[in-house]
Amino acid sequence: MADYFQDISAIQYEGAESTNPLAFKHYNPQEVVLGKTMEEHLRFASCYWHNFCWDGADVFGGGTFGRPWLQPGDAMERAKQKADVAFEFFSKLGAPFYCFHDIDVAPEGDSINDYIRNFSEMTDILGAKQEETGMKLLWGTANVFSHPRYMSGAATNPDPAIFARAATQVFHAMNATKKLGGANYVLWGGREGYETLLNTDLKREREQFGRFMNMVVEHKYKIGFDGLLLIEPKPQEPTKHQYDYDTATVYGFLKEFGLEKEFAVNIEANHATLSGHSFHHEIATAFALDVFGSIDANRGDAQLGWDTDQFPNSVEEMTLICYEILKNGGYTSGGFNFDTKLRRQSTDPADLFHGHIGGMDTCALGLKKAAAIIENDFIADTKAKRYAGWDDAMGKQILGGEYSLASLADLATRSNLDPRQVSGKQELLENQVNQVLFGR
Amino acid sequence: MADYFQDISAIQYEGAESTNPLAFKHYNPQEVVLGKTMEEHLRFASCYWHNFCWDGADVFGGGTFGRPWLQPGDAMERAKQKADVAFEFFSKLGAPFYCFHDIDVAPEGDSINDYIRNFSEMTDILGAKQEETGMKLLWGTANVFSHPRYMSGAATNPDPAIFARAATQVFHAMNATKKLGGANYVLWGGREGYETLLNTDLKREREQFGRFMNMVVEHKYKIGFDGLLLIEPKPQEPTKHQYDYDTATVYGFLKEFGLEKEFAVNIEANHATLSGHSFHHEIATAFALDVFGSIDANRGDAQLGWDTDQFPNSVEEMTLICYEILKNGGYTSGGFNFDTKLRRQSTDPADLFHGHIGGMDTCALGLKKAAAIIENDFIADTKAKRYAGWDDAMGKQILGGEYSLASLADLATRSNLDPRQVSGKQELLENQVNQVLFGR
Amino acid sequence: MADYFQDISAIQYEGAESTNPLAFKHYNPQEVVLGKTMEEHLRFASCYWHNFCWDGADVFGGGTFGRPWLQPGDAMERAKQKADVAFEFFSKLGAPFYCFHDIDVAPEGDSINDYIRNFSEMTDILGAKQEETGMKLLWGTANVFSHPRYMSGAATNPDPAIFARAATQVFHAMNATKKLGGANYVLWGGREGYETLLNTDLKREREQFGRFMNMVVEHKYKIGFDGLLLIEPKPQEPTKHQYDYDTATVYGFLKEFGLEKEFAVNIEANHATLSGHSFHHEIATAFALDVFGSIDANRGDAQLGWDTDQFPNSVEEMTLICYEILKNGGYTSGGFNFDTKLRRQSTDPADLFHGHIGGMDTCALGLKKAAAIIENDFIADTKAKRYAGWDDAMGKQILGGEYSLASLADLATRSNLDPRQVSGKQELLENQVNQVLFGR
Amino acid sequence: MADYFQDISAIQYEGAESTNPLAFKHYNPQEVVLGKTMEEHLRFASCYWHNFCWDGADVFGGGTFGRPWLQPGDAMERAKQKADVAFEFFSKLGAPFYCFHDIDVAPEGDSINDYIRNFSEMTDILGAKQEETGMKLLWGTANVFSHPRYMSGAATNPDPAIFARAATQVFHAMNATKKLGGANYVLWGGREGYETLLNTDLKREREQFGRFMNMVVEHKYKIGFDGLLLIEPKPQEPTKHQYDYDTATVYGFLKEFGLEKEFAVNIEANHATLSGHSFHHEIATAFALDVFGSIDANRGDAQLGWDTDQFPNSVEEMTLICYEILKNGGYTSGGFNFDTKLRRQSTDPADLFHGHIGGMDTCALGLKKAAAIIENDFIADTKAKRYAGWDDAMGKQILGGEYSLASLADLATRSNLDPRQVSGKQELLENQVNQVLFGR
Ligand SMILES: [Co+2]
Ligand SMILES: [Co+2]
Ligand SMILES: [Co+2]
Ligand SMILES: [Co+2]
Ligand SMILES: [Co+2]
Ligand SMILES: [Co+2]
Ligand SMILES: [Co+2]
Ligand SMILES: [Co+2]
Repeated sequence: MADYFQDISAIQYEGAESTNPLAFKHYNPQEVVLGKTMEEHLRFASCYWHNFCWDGADVFGGGTFGRPWLQPGDAMERAKQKADVAFEFFSKLGAPFYCFHDIDVAPEGDSINDYIRNFSEMTDILGAKQEETGMKLLWGTANVFSHPRYMSGAATNPDPAIFARAATQVFHAMNATKKLGGANYVLWGGREGYETLLNTDLKREREQFGRFMNMVVEHKYKIGFDGLLLIEPKPQEPTKHQYDYDTATVYGFLKEFGLEKEFAVNIEANHATLSGHSFHHEIATAFALDVFGSIDANRGDAQLGWDTDQFPNSVEEMTLICYEILKNGGYTSGGFNFDTKLRRQSTDPADLFHGHIGGMDTCALGLKKAAAIIENDFIADTKAKRYAGWDDAMGKQILGGEYSLASLADLATRSNLDPRQVSGKQELLENQVNQVLFGR
Repeated sequence: MADYFQDISAIQYEGAESTNPLAFKHYNPQEVVLGKTMEEHLRFASCYWHNFCWDGADVFGGGTFGRPWLQPGDAMERAKQKADVAFEFFSKLGAPFYCFHDIDVAPEGDSINDYIRNFSEMTDILGAKQEETGMKLLWGTANVFSHPRYMSGAATNPDPAIFARAATQVFHAMNATKKLGGANYVLWGGREGYETLLNTDLKREREQFGRFMNMVVEHKYKIGFDGLLLIEPKPQEPTKHQYDYDTATVYGFLKEFGLEKEFAVNIEANHATLSGHSFHHEIATAFALDVFGSIDANRGDAQLGWDTDQFPNSVEEMTLICYEILKNGGYTSGGFNFDTKLRRQSTDPADLFHGHIGGMDTCALGLKKAAAIIENDFIADTKAKRYAGWDDAMGKQILGGEYSLASLADLATRSNLDPRQVSGKQELLENQVNQVLFGR
Repeated sequence: MADYFQDISAIQYEGAESTNPLAFKHYNPQEVVLGKTMEEHLRFASCYWHNFCWDGADVFGGGTFGRPWLQPGDAMERAKQKADVAFEFFSKLGAPFYCFHDIDVAPEGDSINDYIRNFSEMTDILGAKQEETGMKLLWGTANVFSHPRYMSGAATNPDPAIFARAATQVFHAMNATKKLGGANYVLWGGREGYETLLNTDLKREREQFGRFMNMVVEHKYKIGFDGLLLIEPKPQEPTKHQYDYDTATVYGFLKEFGLEKEFAVNIEANHATLSGHSFHHEIATAFALDVFGSIDANRGDAQLGWDTDQFPNSVEEMTLICYEILKNGGYTSGGFNFDTKLRRQSTDPADLFHGHIGGMDTCALGLKKAAAIIENDFIADTKAKRYAGWDDAMGKQILGGEYSLASLADLATRSNLDPRQVSGKQELLENQVNQVLFGR
Repeated sequence: MADYFQDISAIQYEGAESTNPLAFKHYNPQEVVLGKTMEEHLRFASCYWHNFCWDGADVFGGGTFGRPWLQPGDAMERAKQKADVAFEFFSKLGAPFYCFHDIDVAPEGDSINDYIRNFSEMTDILGAKQEETGMKLLWGTANVFSHPRYMSGAATNPDPAIFARAATQVFHAMNATKKLGGANYVLWGGREGYETLLNTDLKREREQFGRFMNMVVEHKYKIGFDGLLLIEPKPQEPTKHQYDYDTATVYGFLKEFGLEKEFAVNIEANHATLSGHSFHHEIATAFALDVFGSIDANRGDAQLGWDTDQFPNSVEEMTLICYEILKNGGYTSGGFNFDTKLRRQSTDPADLFHGHIGGMDTCALGLKKAAAIIENDFIADTKAKRYAGWDDAMGKQILGGEYSLASLADLATRSNLDPRQVSGKQELLENQVNQVLFGR
């Protein structure tokens, strides 16, 4: 075990009054909410990449964090040092899960065989550390977007040899995820998109993508992986346009290739907003389309047009997210993964804790507030009353296919049907939500 | 016939050198481009609503145009006066088609029977005017978004009686479209969306919407309408979120309800940009998904977040649109409809002509430039070369399902497959397009 | 007095536990916070225009509210009926102030003399109603953007006669504001901008605008109006570009014309976000530039590109706004005016109350939370520590002009100055804010 | 001299018909347009940073270009190799100018003395290369944003020692610019802004920034640098908010600190669009405020919210930019600098030429089209006619201060002034521009 965070002990729940910045104010893992512990409800995960593979560089400047394990040195030694620090962090934080890309945890080396060997050695180490700490893997994934060979896509690359190279990584990453008991496997198509339509054959690339996804499904069954397969939508960045634009687009793609029962979505808050939707919208849409899987909990900046991956801190927003999740039965294998970056100016080791503590408390409070809504569910009541007509005879007959346009027009004309509009009560509903948030 | 445009004669093609602002510089209807006349290729239409039903009001101010037929008076007399002016305009402009909503052409009256009677009388008049002038109907549609009763949606309204009211209008508007020989029927779900998720049941509303669309299909076959059924995507405005968000979203909806063979999309340029896509993207996506139908040719303002519906004037953009259309075989029943508004400060009657002449010349030039690309098609050549690997053995085997993840990983590993990236040549391609646009 | 809201009594403070939707949960006018009552701190105002002059129409549909006083009829009778309802509402709501445009309260009539007579008669009535109810005027303003004559601007119109017409309205609106004891006078340049640079002389229009503003200042002194003159920035809508784009732009304009001591800004939250800034940014900038005046409290929708003017409901956001105001000494003559519209579907008379109650409680909570921050001001402490170097010798010498580039470079070189970056602690600060918001 | 571009000869003008991708179609340096050569008008520059210091990395992946001089090695040797390649490129391209940051051309080393020595040695080499090739320096600048020490700003850093460090670089970069005969000196405040207002004292940072800018002015006079000092606005990225947001904001800042005669702006197209303005708007505003200096010619992507720095390729847009420049007398010391990046997938050395050739031809065509407008200037004619009233007696009297609000209101009332709106003719003007662009 490393002692990068030597001054920091395991984070404890101390309650809302605590003045200790390194304590949870609201996340109390064993506290029961609506019949389950908070730990079971929230299924928190930390990510390997932003926390341990990034040194604070951005497009206009170099790393500011000075993480020792990201300095030059023997690649495997550095990878082990990184794993030590990562598990020191995970253990002290107290989120039960973590997530990784293949090349987050092991160096690629100079050949495919190097890659396989390094990755295998490192996943053995991760397995041992899981054993030792009790940490679990929420999901694994393969990074098939950072290497220059993937600049024009992985599955959607114009070169089938690059498709094959990506398949190789996904094969090993899926196997590793199974080996480590991962609860899900995620695919983020970071370069599956285009920079210009002038050189892009959309139809061909869709076919390639569809075939790739089918291969993933076949492999899942072959190895007996029983977690969810998840696609993570993102509209753009790094590409000008990414095929997995948003939940509705992914759904159409899945339907086209007959995959809608095989994949669910991993919704990231900041990707939602980049696609022109609210986070809430993406979650509600995923449930409506029956493809909800998991969440990358973060936030963007409403004024910025790129993926800032900030820690979630709006309880106002998170309450409605938790409400949707609770109303739809909660997570199955998914969870709240913090796909979050520190601000580049947050250079203290403790800042990693501050970010995660804030994020976890935000979700925990959101859960408790959502549970409070559900206990006296004015939202559900309002909807039930608002749509009541569809549960009556005419509504059921219409939906049941008993009317044609002609017969319905005839009915309306004979009775000179003149329905009046009814208030949507938006302001009242918003006030009621606020009362749960800030009332007693 | 009216003489609102008494100082303006029928617009003629006078060629690029003409200094007459009321002449076409590029649109020469009978000129043949790639084997068809420009008129056949472009299938231009003017719209009734922005041109003849709008007096220049916006959210912050009243009408500036002072159109006589929009002043108070007997509703049917005004509707006839409006039709006179509209057909005077259509005839003088020389676009072969027009488009309308039911209540653009006839007053709603005080009851459904009024509506039916007025609409029937006015469509008789429109039929006579078509006969007289040779004008044709590109598409008809029903306005089920302006009346207060539709404030919470038409097909997706919480009240089934409002669904029935909307069905009544769509029934009559489809029948009228058939009666007038319309080439297509359009559905724009202007209020099919939500203002807040707090009072909205997304799943229920999708079911209602799916049933409504199926009723439309059934009615189409029942009356033997042989045009296309078109859905016009728009992401937001007037609602916070509209269900027919963009082409990919509509496609997913169609697949869910088994309608993807029955509907195509009517893509509006300004709706494309409001949804975060380029106009070009939406067109290319529609062809890739095999749901391309027709176009509402206009443009937005890259700095503004609402539907400005300006006349298209970028030949640079329109050339690539026309290229996609030509490469995919051209319009079948669709066409370029100008869903365009004058700027509120364009208060001269002649301004209606200036806007349309500019729009038609932009499309005509785009068509000619696109044809010039196709004659020596560096775009197609580049793509063919770029994806050549997929036409080779390994590419075909992959797509043909002959590889699993495992066997492909095995192949890659044994050969230590290390494909190199190949330049996408975006800047060169852009230069080549510009050379066609601005070269000799 | 009207009884449009006959079922609704005066709104009372009932505390956070109240389940009465028509009661304040947090706004307790006489409750003292940091030495002043909430009423004195917040200085709430309702607006005439959105509440009483708008019937729920939007660009795609007609009015949904059916307000009786907006139906056809004798214009002055309707204006009186409107005033009755407005003051019924104001009195029952319990915000101490209101705001109006000249033509909100009186019909324009057919001539300038009509306008003057009607406006004079109606302001007499308003004066009487103020007397009777104790209501006060937060600010008056002139609507020089709705009439067609203003389509190309008022002060910046290409026609000086239109400048003169606008001057006439501003003259009377300023006089009326003084007569009614208004605390401020606002100028919103809704049409002072351009649609296209092709027909716009920016330099000329700036000169016109500068002259107009100077005339306003001169008139203020002439009539002895001792309130603030306020400019309300907005970046676009209805125009493509509006000259008073944001606070920083207004400041540059004021400096150019020597007006920076004469005007302050009236910042609207939704205008802030439309200009690409956070609401918080605009407030903080106004204080930094010493031009803060008043606030139009509302909110936009982070996904929509137009002015939705919704009621503010984010306590998270409002707390930081109130913090800035409190830290800078509070309002002088300004206040929180609700420049807010109901959603078009909020058709019940009671919805006007729900919206305002929610907005007032949001501000009230924001005030209390801000006061809680100030009592133990970690934000101020962090800043003091962070900038401490500038209070030391070298910092003071630099700011005092004692160094040139050369001498400072020399100093740095001689000592090989190598300062280290220090964490900005953003995540920690955000957690601390949340603890005040949601802690006990 | 290097021979990185060994297969490419000096780029020649071959005219619009040429099929040689490595030739200019429109940029003919010695061709005279409106009395000056194209070379004199356009003053093209290439930049050091994107072309020679960037290897194709983005936030999600590593370098794709494989530039030999960016591989590990002796830093000064690499810098010299880079200079060789850069001047090979500059000479072959035929743009007369180049631009650089201090640390683009010389390694920072381990101490300030290293920095000074390296930079001095490299600027000697650049001087020799200028001599040898005839290249000139359009502007120099200092990179005070990439090093971790600048993460919280340079001049606006909370630590005065970092201000001093930045001053040291600016001191040497200004001196180097003078030594190399640079025509201008640029300041881009890439980190002068904030990430969160929670830790930022806006007022203090403005004061620091104002003092820094005054030091720059003083140094300019001290060393007798007679070029322009330029500030480059950018609204955000890398910071959440950058102080030099746009031209209007910079103008306000300059006025506040009495610097408006000392600085002009260097407007970048992509920064304009990120700030919510059109490129055209920023140029026109700079001329209206008399602060126009130079241009970073590039373009963004209308759908993307970050700085894509693509090569300009819209002749439609560039024509209006050139029109503004020509109408205002042309560049003095400024020019068109290509602050442009290849797409990451453009990995061939020749792609650097394709990008620049396309950009230069776009500007050259824009210049010729703008000149064609000016020869028969319907834009100027339209404006003259539109604002004619302001040249008449009443207009002059108003602007001359001869009216008060009262006297103007009196005049309007006595004559019941009722001016009518006049069409803005936007569509006609747009058609006329298109006719110049695409007519014969
Ligand atoms: Co993610
Ligand atoms: Co992200
Ligand atoms: Co349309
Ligand atoms: Co539209
Ligand atoms: Co306002
Ligand atoms: Co507003
Ligand atoms: Co630049
Ligand atoms: Co840039």
